[in-house]
Amino acid sequence: MSNSFGRLFRVTTWGESHGPAIGAVIDGCPPGIALSETDIQPWLDRRRPGGNRHVSQRRESDEVRILSGTFEGRTTGAPIALQIDNEDARPKDYAPNADRFRPGHADFGTQAKYGLRDWRGGGRASARETAARVAAGAVARLIVPQVRINAWLVELGGDRIETFDTDEIGRNALNCPDPRAAERWAAMLDAARKNASSLGAVVECVAEGAPAGWGAPLAAKLDADLAGALMSIPAVKGVEIGDGFAAARSRGEDNVDEIRRGPAFLSNHAGGILGGISTGQPIILRAAFKPTSSLPRPLRTIDGEGADAEIVTTGRHDPCVAIRGAAVVEAMVALTLADHFLLHRAQCGA
Amino acid sequence: MSNSFGRLFRVTTWGESHGPAIGAVIDGCPPGIALSETDIQPWLDRRRPGGNRHVSQRRESDEVRILSGTFEGRTTGAPIALQIDNEDARPKDYAPNADRFRPGHADFGTQAKYGLRDWRGGGRASARETAARVAAGAVARLIVPQVRINAWLVELGGDRIETFDTDEIGRNALNCPDPRAAERWAAMLDAARKNASSLGAVVECVAEGAPAGWGAPLAAKLDADLAGALMSIPAVKGVEIGDGFAAARSRGEDNVDEIRRGPAFLSNHAGGILGGISTGQPIILRAAFKPTSSLPRPLRTIDGEGADAEIVTTGRHDPCVAIRGAAVVEAMVALTLADHFLLHRAQCGA
Amino acid sequence: MSNSFGRLFRVTTWGESHGPAIGAVIDGCPPGIALSETDIQPWLDRRRPGGNRHVSQRRESDEVRILSGTFEGRTTGAPIALQIDNEDARPKDYAPNADRFRPGHADFGTQAKYGLRDWRGGGRASARETAARVAAGAVARLIVPQVRINAWLVELGGDRIETFDTDEIGRNALNCPDPRAAERWAAMLDAARKNASSLGAVVECVAEGAPAGWGAPLAAKLDADLAGALMSIPAVKGVEIGDGFAAARSRGEDNVDEIRRGPAFLSNHAGGILGGISTGQPIILRAAFKPTSSLPRPLRTIDGEGADAEIVTTGRHDPCVAIRGAAVVEAMVALTLADHFLLHRAQCGA
Amino acid sequence: MSNSFGRLFRVTTWGESHGPAIGAVIDGCPPGIALSETDIQPWLDRRRPGGNRHVSQRRESDEVRILSGTFEGRTTGAPIALQIDNEDARPKDYAPNADRFRPGHADFGTQAKYGLRDWRGGGRASARETAARVAAGAVARLIVPQVRINAWLVELGGDRIETFDTDEIGRNALNCPDPRAAERWAAMLDAARKNASSLGAVVECVAEGAPAGWGAPLAAKLDADLAGALMSIPAVKGVEIGDGFAAARSRGEDNVDEIRRGPAFLSNHAGGILGGISTGQPIILRAAFKPTSSLPRPLRTIDGEGADAEIVTTGRHDPCVAIRGAAVVEAMVALTLADHFLLHRAQCGA
Repeated sequence: MSNSFGRLFRVTTWGESHGPAIGAVIDGCPPGIALSETDIQPWLDRRRPGGNRHVSQRRESDEVRILSGTFEGRTTGAPIALQIDNEDARPKDYAPNADRFRPGHADFGTQAKYGLRDWRGGGRASARETAARVAAGAVARLIVPQVRINAWLVELGGDRIETFDTDEIGRNALNCPDPRAAERWAAMLDAARKNASSLGAVVECVAEGAPAGWGAPLAAKLDADLAGALMSIPAVKGVEIGDGFAAARSRGEDNVDEIRRGPAFLSNHAGGILGGISTGQPIILRAAFKPTSSLPRPLRTIDGEGADAEIVTTGRHDPCVAIRGAAVVEAMVALTLADHFLLHRAQCGA
Repeated sequence: MSNSFGRLFRVTTWGESHGPAIGAVIDGCPPGIALSETDIQPWLDRRRPGGNRHVSQRRESDEVRILSGTFEGRTTGAPIALQIDNEDARPKDYAPNADRFRPGHADFGTQAKYGLRDWRGGGRASARETAARVAAGAVARLIVPQVRINAWLVELGGDRIETFDTDEIGRNALNCPDPRAAERWAAMLDAARKNASSLGAVVECVAEGAPAGWGAPLAAKLDADLAGALMSIPAVKGVEIGDGFAAARSRGEDNVDEIRRGPAFLSNHAGGILGGISTGQPIILRAAFKPTSSLPRPLRTIDGEGADAEIVTTGRHDPCVAIRGAAVVEAMVALTLADHFLLHRAQCGA
Repeated sequence: MSNSFGRLFRVTTWGESHGPAIGAVIDGCPPGIALSETDIQPWLDRRRPGGNRHVSQRRESDEVRILSGTFEGRTTGAPIALQIDNEDARPKDYAPNADRFRPGHADFGTQAKYGLRDWRGGGRASARETAARVAAGAVARLIVPQVRINAWLVELGGDRIETFDTDEIGRNALNCPDPRAAERWAAMLDAARKNASSLGAVVECVAEGAPAGWGAPLAAKLDADLAGALMSIPAVKGVEIGDGFAAARSRGEDNVDEIRRGPAFLSNHAGGILGGISTGQPIILRAAFKPTSSLPRPLRTIDGEGADAEIVTTGRHDPCVAIRGAAVVEAMVALTLADHFLLHRAQCGA
Repeated sequence: MSNSFGRLFRVTTWGESHGPAIGAVIDGCPPGIALSETDIQPWLDRRRPGGNRHVSQRRESDEVRILSGTFEGRTTGAPIALQIDNEDARPKDYAPNADRFRPGHADFGTQAKYGLRDWRGGGRASARETAARVAAGAVARLIVPQVRINAWLVELGGDRIETFDTDEIGRNALNCPDPRAAERWAAMLDAARKNASSLGAVVECVAEGAPAGWGAPLAAKLDADLAGALMSIPAVKGVEIGDGFAAARSRGEDNVDEIRRGPAFLSNHAGGILGGISTGQPIILRAAFKPTSSLPRPLRTIDGEGADAEIVTTGRHDPCVAIRGAAVVEAMVALTLADHFLLHRAQCGA
């Protein structure tokens, strides 16, 4: 069950970075929903590598095919198999380092766990796996069409945005809502690449339109599921809901979201979720992405025999994985909300 | 499944704040483990209200009984039913506000979801439910005895610790590793209580002794499960692993944990987990607790008919829920690690 | 997860035959349903031992208490904890055989699996556990009130009923719809008891009122779930749906259920389920109960050291467990149908 | 979760009879196991249609490809994606009946459930889906190599075998262990085909080599899981374990399996499972297959508007689906045992 996400809208992904293909099987999709490849492709295109100089130069068309679960353009309720071929796999890029553990990556733990590992680009642990999540997330959006889910970067390399313009996000290559910050960040990324370095960033995601009442106690708290969903994205090391860590520095009377008739909340410090259940306000999340550990500079590590070694990661990598990560954040939020919509409908009938 | 936590070491909790009792059923516990009430009681005592002036004055002995799953002092592999009676329930404290939604609480969402709610102290959404988690967590510790799990406060009301002394944590009433901070915090809490206010805090938890190799991809990433586990604790709004949000401000070469033979990691920015799998280093987590919204001052809200109303929360509440929350953080980490130990053993046989 | 049944209407039972109590926790129950102990007690009374000379003489009042999950007489959507005290436990009856495996029972496999076992009356494997299922099944009936579920014996010790009168079932102590067969069976049971023997039987169950459309492919086929549910009842060794094994001896043109407008099926060889999905016809099931292996006569076995031994089962046992088993069959069918109602509502919205 | 089977060795199948392909994703496979297509293909070949005149004349090479989860010929612990192309799909065969429900099939319930259906050869409900199960079952066998799983027919059209010769099973086209019965059955099948009829049959399966101790209480009883697994196979209407329905006609002293040192059971009426846990004896199962309802003769039904109609099933069908069903029975038993091996290892460590 390790590779399946969700309880009722259940997505199982498979595939390695340098195998023949990757894919996702969606089980539990409601029937009768209009679905074709054109509903999925735009989201994949947004995540796709090779789009500009700030992301990996691997060239993948990321063309998705639907192999099952639809009939005459509608979902049938049967499992939906989505498949994306790997076209520009270059496993040989990784051969020189086959026997060394890339520090900052899953390599060491994977070897410890399984006793062997597919060293070609991280194999299963590669961020390439997230393409399958984005494809599944596109289907999830159709299950909860009343919800609008958008993610963007609010901070890159410690530099925060100062203005916010939704329209700006799509205009630049960095998913940045502040045009001046986008310019600064582009320069920072160029410098990082030149210095064989990489940068972290914070992605913010807002989901508007979810009604009050999604979620449930303990293991199905909406915020707990969202936190797990975001933390499962490669490179994410922190998650916040609403005011997040700032809430820990506030006073009760400042943090509480009072209510007036409507119902109208007078603030949204909670980020749209209280007691694990949605309040009907916008759901606000943030995920901290670490700088990628795939660096084209020598790093100290050990080899398969445990001896000291040095490693220079070649391959083609993003200097800041959060840029493409925004699309993955949206997908994970969509998957979580679709699942909770079905969970709520099961128990409460609406 | 909403009220069950874990996949193989599976804990289902039940009970309301002001009902006759609360409890937990543990399914999947390995057999042959020495277990009696004395293994559980100390952990409950630590979380127990009424211990000092900084926590709720509700008086509960929180005596746990084991009703099944053991024989002659050892676990049998059958479900373990744990039960704690509610002794000092005072539902009438809540009667005046039965028809009004406490802002900052699950009340509004619960009503929207279920169409009715147990208004006595938050019912199921009460932090009292966490006593059942602490009891189950005590059993989880016995499944992974090689792991030492400790939590403490590193920040309260925005004031951070400056020194760290493990022995100090048990000496003060605030789970604080810095004696001077403990003094400052005590004064801050007294002031908050006097001002009908409340304070947030950050709890840090370190689990030492987990081997490399626990965890797995996507939905069973160890960090994803831990993040979900911590975010499921009432009042938690943010979770970090390792450097957390600070990682988003660092450079790749500074964030990466290089390795030397041993294996010896030269740093632990990752917090002991990479690619969802443990590395064998200490697992480091932080959870941000918001200040409680149960305030003995008038707050604006609406009533069941949607009309504007005012509410003053009486009842007996902690001015900073994170103090007792540290025990709950430890319990959730223990439950997650026990579950992953079994998951790992299932797939990899060790 | 071994001790939990169902996906969305999820029941976890706990407790041993001679421990302090047994119980069930129901997670996922829809909110707003009128529920009190009086909705559950009659079903427990029907299953209760001590009712007449044909069943175990253990005296249990089997009084159920609801410890959580209701408020002002209605379900809240929170977990429902049901508890039944064990009153007439006599573990000493079993002490003489503590070290010997009762043949025909779970003893040998339990010891092999867990390395230890609660030998008091079979511990967890005792049929007493089924009282918790019957209690939970009573709640399940309220989730699908449109469905009428009834079970009776159609065969005992190889002797089949020849007439069928629904009203007769409650009149005799044997859940037998044929008064003459009931007389014959009573004599057979008296003889079996006198001869230190026991008898098997076949229970039939019909569920009327389930609409077309419950069920789903592969692992959630309605018939697959029902078969697993019935086979999980102690002593059941065979399950049939519709014509069952007789279908294997029939021709396609005789077995197929043709349809006329209405829709009106011209027959029901399928037993109300085709391709794992209900057709709207009555769901018809049969379960074969073996004769109990608890016999008051010497049987050959081995002891804990593996040496040859002899065992005489004392304790108080039913000469035909299927008589009380009918109530358990009904409960398992109710649990399965309630779960599928919720599964269907989740995916298809009605 | 409807299309996933198993808890820890979890198989999700996808695909329709007349779509581009079918497949299975295995999640939870232990690492380090030698696996290539040649380990799977022979089992698919055995189930394959077109092999002789007694089975469907659809021509499928059923060539399986492994798309993920292996590296250098060994499993990595990552999901294993198996894929089989549909080559000889002829959806037009079904077009004339697109608007009519085939009696005896899932058509009516599928339409009632989902509001639409893929009418091409039954879509998802087609027995073609079982090829994906057989492929996954081949991998499952490698997880429990100590277990030998074999299935054969013991009865066809009501005619039982009289002799049993293991070697004979592979010699005839009917999976029949009695050469004379095989001759009679061949004649019966020829007659059935000529008469536009079909025949049912009983498949028996024996799994030898499973140790004592697999299984667990309630929802993870080994016999309950096996019963559900077999009942999930298209056309199965009854399942027996050990003596099955004959046990209901026996006396306790005749049915009990006494034990002598060794341990050596003196009989195996239980079919290798007691109290839901394996005893170490051979596990013996039987499944009753109904005659297929796909008959090339006019049957009464209704159309999509509910009006009376007539239907003649064309397409290419097996006169007795149990013949190829034997391979599916073996696969489902293998999947169940592999899952229970992992479940047991998780809880009990061996």
